[in-house]
Amino acid sequence: MHSLRFTAESSSNGVVERDFLMGEVPGVLWSPAAGADRAPLVLMGHGGGNHKKHPAMTGRARRFVTDGGFHVAVIDAPGHGDRPRTARDEQELAALSEAKAAGRPEGPDARRYSMYLAELAVPEWRAALDSLQELAEIGADGPVGYFGVNLGTAIGVPLVAAEPRITAAVFGLHWPDALAETAKRITVPIEFDLQWDDEDVPREAGLALFDAFASQEKTLHANAGKHHEMPRFETDSAVRFFARHLGRALT
Amino acid sequence: MHSLRFTAESSSNGVVERDFLMGEVPGVLWSPAAGADRAPLVLMGHGGGNHKKHPAMTGRARRFVTDGGFHVAVIDAPGHGDRPRTARDEQELAALSEAKAAGRPEGPDARRYSMYLAELAVPEWRAALDSLQELAEIGADGPVGYFGVNLGTAIGVPLVAAEPRITAAVFGLHWPDALAETAKRITVPIEFDLQWDDEDVPREAGLALFDAFASQEKTLHANAGKHHEMPRFETDSAVRFFARHLGRALT
Repeated sequence: MHSLRFTAESSSNGVVERDFLMGEVPGVLWSPAAGADRAPLVLMGHGGGNHKKHPAMTGRARRFVTDGGFHVAVIDAPGHGDRPRTARDEQELAALSEAKAAGRPEGPDARRYSMYLAELAVPEWRAALDSLQELAEIGADGPVGYFGVNLGTAIGVPLVAAEPRITAAVFGLHWPDALAETAKRITVPIEFDLQWDDEDVPREAGLALFDAFASQEKTLHANAGKHHEMPRFETDSAVRFFARHLGRALT
Repeated sequence: MHSLRFTAESSSNGVVERDFLMGEVPGVLWSPAAGADRAPLVLMGHGGGNHKKHPAMTGRARRFVTDGGFHVAVIDAPGHGDRPRTARDEQELAALSEAKAAGRPEGPDARRYSMYLAELAVPEWRAALDSLQELAEIGADGPVGYFGVNLGTAIGVPLVAAEPRITAAVFGLHWPDALAETAKRITVPIEFDLQWDDEDVPREAGLALFDAFASQEKTLHANAGKHHEMPRFETDSAVRFFARHLGRALT
């Protein structure tokens, strides 16, 4: 098992940002400047083509830390961010570009590539969780949540199904094809985000994936708008969801 | 036009409760004990068989007042609460009881009775809004929202479609049959609550009604559970929805 090796640290507006390496995998841990001790941890999976410090991640992480008082950790998915691309990555990205250029739906290619990445990423996330829980300010027995839409759901569904330490999760914006069977094994509380006018993931596909979760508490949030138009207030909602389930009073 | 006549006043835990009569229609107005001046107003429609001070109303109203700083007004629907029942009311209630006793779905009877009540209730609500806006602490130009599920949606959809003063609304738990055409004329922001395992309103019926709203900003919240199991955190969500749209900072 790799311990985390911190490589950089900065702080602004009440949020401490620490870059780390876990073996070859780069990640970032955001924490409250005050009150971080034994705060709950939210693992956050980034979207396809993004990376650990994409604005969608840094913006959400800041809200999670300042409004919820959580630690937030993101690692680069294989072939993403600061990680090298393999021949397979290049091949898959070329297929995605071709589909886009030809005006074909990206779905079939995106699903295949996501499933490939998930197989690699799930053990990385579980190892990262081991290492993060070695940190005194997180600890081995604290509550853990997972947030990830898009590719973050493709990786997150098998991760949460396999990982009993994760007790609440926010998913969304993905097809049921390869995930619904796995989702049937998930029983922790779920918030699921869907875009009502998604041009990539048909409405019925999103509803079918939401339906598959076995969770007794599950909530679907469907917003008018296209795939990339998920409203910012869903981040606020996710903070409140994690505060309810990870036992943190809101600041 | 009838002015409001206040008939009783009490106060507890920061909430002032005033019973009123508007002509023959009884209602209640809850307001913050401090900071009530020109606070936004939320009109709240109660469910079928309920009344203005059913616990589902008083509990929600208290959260709206203390967490959102809003005024909240509820009036009894025709034939409900402190209002006399007509022969038609008795007939409709008997039909509903019969359906229930026979194990038949209540839907057809509930829809017919709701539509009848909505025709009477919409002009009452508009008159109540006139009267409420005469109060100095509300005023004629302040923001107004509407919250109502169940019968509150059967009345609220035609009310919001007809009433330009209402600029944000929470609806849910109703069939599209008599409402979808009217919903197509509504363009204000909407939050719509649906129960994923509703034994009265089929899932597809709820989704169809949500789909009908013409609003550019609309959000569906679908929760696992039966018709009467809408989770309490949806009240918290409604407070935040109205805070966004009625321009009130959260307390």
